[in-house]
Amino acid sequence: MAGSKFAYVKKFELPDALLPSTFLVFRLDGHSFHRFTDQHGFVKPNDLRALQLMDHAAKSLMEEYNDIGLAFGESDEYSFLLRKSTALYNRRQAKIVSTLTSLFTSCYVFHWPKYFPDVPLQYPPSFDGRIVLYPSQQEVRDYFAWRQADTHVNNLYNTAFWALVQQGGQTTTEAHAILRGTISKDKHEILFSRFGINYDKIDPRYRKGSIFVRVETPEEPVVKTDAETVQGLASEESHKKKKKRKIATQLELLHCDLIRDDFWDKYAHLLRD
Amino acid sequence: MAGSKFAYVKKFELPDALLPSTFLVFRLDGHSFHRFTDQHGFVKPNDLRALQLMDHAAKSLMEEYNDIGLAFGESDEYSFLLRKSTALYNRRQAKIVSTLTSLFTSCYVFHWPKYFPDVPLQYPPSFDGRIVLYPSQQEVRDYFAWRQADTHVNNLYNTAFWALVQQGGQTTTEAHAILRGTISKDKHEILFSRFGINYDKIDPRYRKGSIFVRVETPEEPVVKTDAETVQGLASEESHKKKKKRKIATQLELLHCDLIRDDFWDKYAHLLRD
Amino acid sequence: MAGSKFAYVKKFELPDALLPSTFLVFRLDGHSFHRFTDQHGFVKPNDLRALQLMDHAAKSLMEEYNDIGLAFGESDEYSFLLRKSTALYNRRQAKIVSTLTSLFTSCYVFHWPKYFPDVPLQYPPSFDGRIVLYPSQQEVRDYFAWRQADTHVNNLYNTAFWALVQQGGQTTTEAHAILRGTISKDKHEILFSRFGINYDKIDPRYRKGSIFVRVETPEEPVVKTDAETVQGLASEESHKKKKKRKIATQLELLHCDLIRDDFWDKYAHLLRD
Amino acid sequence: MAGSKFAYVKKFELPDALLPSTFLVFRLDGHSFHRFTDQHGFVKPNDLRALQLMDHAAKSLMEEYNDIGLAFGESDEYSFLLRKSTALYNRRQAKIVSTLTSLFTSCYVFHWPKYFPDVPLQYPPSFDGRIVLYPSQQEVRDYFAWRQADTHVNNLYNTAFWALVQQGGQTTTEAHAILRGTISKDKHEILFSRFGINYDKIDPRYRKGSIFVRVETPEEPVVKTDAETVQGLASEESHKKKKKRKIATQLELLHCDLIRDDFWDKYAHLLRD
Repeated sequence: MAGSKFAYVKKFELPDALLPSTFLVFRLDGHSFHRFTDQHGFVKPNDLRALQLMDHAAKSLMEEYNDIGLAFGESDEYSFLLRKSTALYNRRQAKIVSTLTSLFTSCYVFHWPKYFPDVPLQYPPSFDGRIVLYPSQQEVRDYFAWRQADTHVNNLYNTAFWALVQQGGQTTTEAHAILRGTISKDKHEILFSRFGINYDKIDPRYRKGSIFVRVETPEEPVVKTDAETVQGLASEESHKKKKKRKIATQLELLHCDLIRDDFWDKYAHLLRD
Repeated sequence: MAGSKFAYVKKFELPDALLPSTFLVFRLDGHSFHRFTDQHGFVKPNDLRALQLMDHAAKSLMEEYNDIGLAFGESDEYSFLLRKSTALYNRRQAKIVSTLTSLFTSCYVFHWPKYFPDVPLQYPPSFDGRIVLYPSQQEVRDYFAWRQADTHVNNLYNTAFWALVQQGGQTTTEAHAILRGTISKDKHEILFSRFGINYDKIDPRYRKGSIFVRVETPEEPVVKTDAETVQGLASEESHKKKKKRKIATQLELLHCDLIRDDFWDKYAHLLRD
Repeated sequence: MAGSKFAYVKKFELPDALLPSTFLVFRLDGHSFHRFTDQHGFVKPNDLRALQLMDHAAKSLMEEYNDIGLAFGESDEYSFLLRKSTALYNRRQAKIVSTLTSLFTSCYVFHWPKYFPDVPLQYPPSFDGRIVLYPSQQEVRDYFAWRQADTHVNNLYNTAFWALVQQGGQTTTEAHAILRGTISKDKHEILFSRFGINYDKIDPRYRKGSIFVRVETPEEPVVKTDAETVQGLASEESHKKKKKRKIATQLELLHCDLIRDDFWDKYAHLLRD
Repeated sequence: MAGSKFAYVKKFELPDALLPSTFLVFRLDGHSFHRFTDQHGFVKPNDLRALQLMDHAAKSLMEEYNDIGLAFGESDEYSFLLRKSTALYNRRQAKIVSTLTSLFTSCYVFHWPKYFPDVPLQYPPSFDGRIVLYPSQQEVRDYFAWRQADTHVNNLYNTAFWALVQQGGQTTTEAHAILRGTISKDKHEILFSRFGINYDKIDPRYRKGSIFVRVETPEEPVVKTDAETVQGLASEESHKKKKKRKIATQLELLHCDLIRDDFWDKYAHLLRD
């Protein structure tokens, strides 16, 4: 057959399966989002529309991939936990990384107008993704704790920084200088004494980030992918298969603490297998 | 600092640099595009709009990444050659695979309305990507030859198949049956005798696929990324740097043979380093 | 400096660290040992001298590498468990695999005359090694259970086979034919009824394989490597360091069941970290 | 069957095939050989017996593995070039690294008494090994040039150092101090003016290291492995096969320059495939 003498080049594709029975954390980050947020006039320190768009894309990913049980997002990054027993794409690394990053990106661009009706997308944004393996439940918990602690540190800083600039009239250089060397308590104090802001009263979405958990439901599945929503006419058979596959789970969006035991006690099934 | 006791989880991110001085071929494929083309009414056997959209996304990728010197696309797949000396993202595999797949996907969705002004995108399409390493020039040539030979085989089959269906009134089952076991010559004959189609006169875009080559230009760079086009107000300094980096290259779109020596003789610089 | 223009070739050495906090099982197998055992007249079905030599080499490895807590040997293979927290050679795969295989081989050849005083080694034997990662305790238990179950199956077969040949006067072809399709119970029966052999009374070394466990001792370390034994004059400092490093562990050789809970309950510390 | 419920643990053994059509350089180094040479009274700066033993082990490796065309040794290290087309052990990395390191080690211990008849081996020495991939001929040349340049630098230093100590009566501390900051020319001068040693007249084995090249011979193979030498009674069939496989190559030991073109022009076949 034509081309058969060239087919040897396929042998250079080496297998890249990930270790079995190990949790997969897939994390993606906005690529050059500093510029992107400037270009699109994101509100500082937090742009609700942008965060909701990130959440929408994350949710779409979880609707498409049932093996993702948990996700955590802050700013322009999102982390997803795939169950340790997942056989998604036979655990091939490049396939998982690229497909998930691609779908997330696609959803982000596709749903942009819903969240930024008055801000046309000026150029195509992109994300980079990676997979990290964690052998045990404790490491998975600590991974998500690490991200949420990061959210806290960043958001406290940014909240104080932009208060100084937007309400305090400081230049950004001055604001950085003021915050240099301060500890958490100092920033709380600045916010409260100078701007009357009680940091702990700020929307938990900004302080805690966004958490999606997949929970089992006693009822029929209510989750639908975008594709299914528009599809409508899927064959009976594929419809049944989908239902079976997706039966009895639902996605909840939370903005709570996931560092303490409470969360993991309540959602213990997330680390089960 | 908050979170520092969790930071150990970063140690699980293992390095994944690709072998130096080896050609990188990055290939991406549409994910579940059979369904996607059905849903969006793609013209068979070839939808010019869809192919042009793929080309646009591919070109955007090459404009953003100067280390891509060559690309080849057919149907819903595209392959990109990165120079063997590329230091892009320190040759980190997941970073390259995910970022390139993401940007391509983003461009595809972003530019969709230009090519399908009357067909709203119904759900977010996605792609998967992979990187294959090739140590020598010959293997790179054979890789692209393999893809173009594949284009030929597929397009000849599809052209005959859809002629039988669309013009010959056969069912798809009948058309497959007619073509089963035929060789290339038979399909040419069917096309010519039954439908008056001289296959060799069909638009070379369909027969040969799309090729982008980066060529050096004696002049100022004319290539602009989407971002730059819309940006307009980039600082002098970053502008200069970009110019320097991108100076003197231009992208040409071809639909020619890349199996024979002619192509590689003419564009010998593509395999140089 | 001389050679500096060539030093770039070092960049082709890519990192190969193994995932942290994951159990490492290092297994080695005799290379072409069928021929080796023939050449050196190994007693069938089990050669005590050869097994003791394997045990000696395994013990030497454990004396040298404190991070090995458990080992299991049968025939010409040996498996070693490295604690999941081991930082041996920064967990570099090739370094660990090659060094451990090398030391084992070296011990095997070095100690050969002790176990085969009348059989000169005719040519240098070799082994191949590999590392397998296991994320959890259960998998480690199952790994060793897998090997011991294999020991049982092989030894029962071999014991019956060689009884038929050596005592029953069958050819090897006949013996294989007789055993074809038999289950465990049948082989027990053949051994007992035809040769008066109660399989369960056979030396547990042959039925259960060899197990080395590292146990903590309340006293001074008594374990010494070959090197230390002969060395004698190690400096005070290195001596102290060694003592400190090796303090309070001792190696026990067992031939017991390691599939049931008893073993793992008693030696629970082996899977602790 | 017994053990089948544990057999799932095999799935954790991931494939580790090396990129096709790429040169493999396998290098091994003595493990803690500083101590080993002290313990066994190696002559300084070069111990002819030890170098010849290394050469013997290297030659045995090449006799066993026909895909090794070239080797270079100095001090306690040896590098081996496997042809880029080698299919040895299906190019599985751990298998190749461990087996080659094992056989080399085994040969070293096995042949020790031939070279050190009066020095009993006091404890089992070991080596570590690694594989580095090189895509092109130039990199392979530069790799070996790098090692030989290293030999030159080390040997010149050691020769001067030990002349100062052994003939000049300096302490080792003084000798290091004298050589600190000297360039090549200075060391030549010290050797000549103080000790009457013309460095360029020193045995090329010490200055250039040991090179084994596999050359084609018009005649019957004369190369025999240790195993074959002692074996004698190999079956006709295996004998024929071996002959066929090894036909027409012979190993030459050289101590010449392999940095300049002369060497590679003469032995151009080493890099051919």
